[in-house]
Amino acid sequence: MVAILAGGTGGAKLARGMLDVVGPEELCVVANTADDIEVYGVHVSPDPDLVALWLADLIDERGYGVRGDTWEVMTALADAGHETWFRLGDRDLALCLVRTELLRAGRRLTEAHAAVLEALGTRARVLPMSDEPVRTHVRAGGRTWPFQEFMIVAGAGAGPPVEEVELRGIARAAPSTEVLEAIARAEAIVIGPSNPVISIGPILNVPGMRHAIANAAAPTVAVSPFVGGRAVKGPTEAFCAQAGIAATAQGVAEAYAGVIDGVVADEPVSGVAALEIDTLMDTPEARGRVAGATLEFARSLSGG
Amino acid sequence: MVAILAGGTGGAKLARGMLDVVGPEELCVVANTADDIEVYGVHVSPDPDLVALWLADLIDERGYGVRGDTWEVMTALADAGHETWFRLGDRDLALCLVRTELLRAGRRLTEAHAAVLEALGTRARVLPMSDEPVRTHVRAGGRTWPFQEFMIVAGAGAGPPVEEVELRGIARAAPSTEVLEAIARAEAIVIGPSNPVISIGPILNVPGMRHAIANAAAPTVAVSPFVGGRAVKGPTEAFCAQAGIAATAQGVAEAYAGVIDGVVADEPVSGVAALEIDTLMDTPEARGRVAGATLEFARSLSGG
Repeated sequence: MVAILAGGTGGAKLARGMLDVVGPEELCVVANTADDIEVYGVHVSPDPDLVALWLADLIDERGYGVRGDTWEVMTALADAGHETWFRLGDRDLALCLVRTELLRAGRRLTEAHAAVLEALGTRARVLPMSDEPVRTHVRAGGRTWPFQEFMIVAGAGAGPPVEEVELRGIARAAPSTEVLEAIARAEAIVIGPSNPVISIGPILNVPGMRHAIANAAAPTVAVSPFVGGRAVKGPTEAFCAQAGIAATAQGVAEAYAGVIDGVVADEPVSGVAALEIDTLMDTPEARGRVAGATLEFARSLSGG
Repeated sequence: MVAILAGGTGGAKLARGMLDVVGPEELCVVANTADDIEVYGVHVSPDPDLVALWLADLIDERGYGVRGDTWEVMTALADAGHETWFRLGDRDLALCLVRTELLRAGRRLTEAHAAVLEALGTRARVLPMSDEPVRTHVRAGGRTWPFQEFMIVAGAGAGPPVEEVELRGIARAAPSTEVLEAIARAEAIVIGPSNPVISIGPILNVPGMRHAIANAAAPTVAVSPFVGGRAVKGPTEAFCAQAGIAATAQGVAEAYAGVIDGVVADEPVSGVAALEIDTLMDTPEARGRVAGATLEFARSLSGG
């Protein structure tokens, strides 16, 4: 079984490729929940949902949300004079309602998200990194923003430089039993090509997570989020700059020192086992190829 | 100012008529919340919303929900294999989200419903009877149903006879400050032509409500829910039968003994001041006429 740590689009694309390589029963994604938000009274889990939609082949062309979704509820909220900066399509909202209903009934986030996966017909598992709430806050331009507001309202990397990233609630969080079991059982642990600070950072900083990965029998490899020297999507550079991480595969490999046994990138990396391949995942074939090569590379490290 | 106690359609129609008679600033509806339901993770208030939609001239022809609403979210839930017996249109759901978001943030139901009214552009007030949760449960055919399930899934009056009506939570409920103030300030208190057992019953049984009405300076008059000897809509007869209330204006007047100073009906009533008029409210003109006559009748009793 392959465990993939994933945030947004990069991790989700790798997971979709891995689904072709190992099949749904052998894939388990541990997804960042520090981007979660309560909005319009419902619980939205952007990263776990993004991964689930990619796995279900239902991701929309715009890069998030359900393909071909409609916007009736958002239109109604806007007509009612309500803020709608966080855009949820009607089908996207329905998935959030499935999750929210279970959370209100006292179920864990892991169980609630499992119902979303079932609703989407996805048989691969996507596990929230923790059942406890962790919420990324970003300090920029002298103001502290909840993560989604920073990304959408403040314009993320286009705004003032990031001064600080705070993971509220992280000290009280723990990996769920399901996450610990997946990591312990995995044949390979793959850190997806997601933002090392705001996507992978929260996962690795859940107390007990690094220990679980270090103690796992499986090798751990990271796929660099930089392709052709740049992040494919999102404000990765801005967050790396603040965290003192060089925006290169080498920088990411060093940031994961002590966690990874190897790195996959399209540029040379030294000081750790490295696989240099084309890592652009812009087609189903490319996603399958990168996932397959990554798994093969991880397997080559298991004897080490 | 006129205070109207209302449940569903009958009370809402009278309130709409009264809006024409006294204007939005002078109208306050106290609405039953014992039909409220948490479904899909959101808080739905069918009676307060029905009144609000009537006042905003947005009620749909089907008798509930927002006129011309769409059903994208319900379709998505059904596609996801989720139960959708409680049908909420997209615009209807948006109103529920406005309310739910405020409730999750710790606001009172009265405040949350005020936001719904504002969203609808309704200037008249519609107050939940209480901020505390009261939930009607119906025992029928040897089974106890939450109210909405009894009405929608069990088929209400068409199913087995009602054995018992239980108002869960009523002992811990209290009228809100806003409700007490409206009753104290009212020039007339009108009990709308709603089901005396499941619509008006919960309102009158909130501890302190009868006392507040009895102590109010204003006369209290009830409009009979029976028109031409029958309830216009809903399973009024079935619930009256169980409660030992004759399904006539006389029966209703007797059920409200000690609360009302007069009754408005389209049939003779004895033992209490009575106004006999045509009470069918099937047109805007009829609604205004019934409301106006009821208010005039109440005023005629104020000297008493």
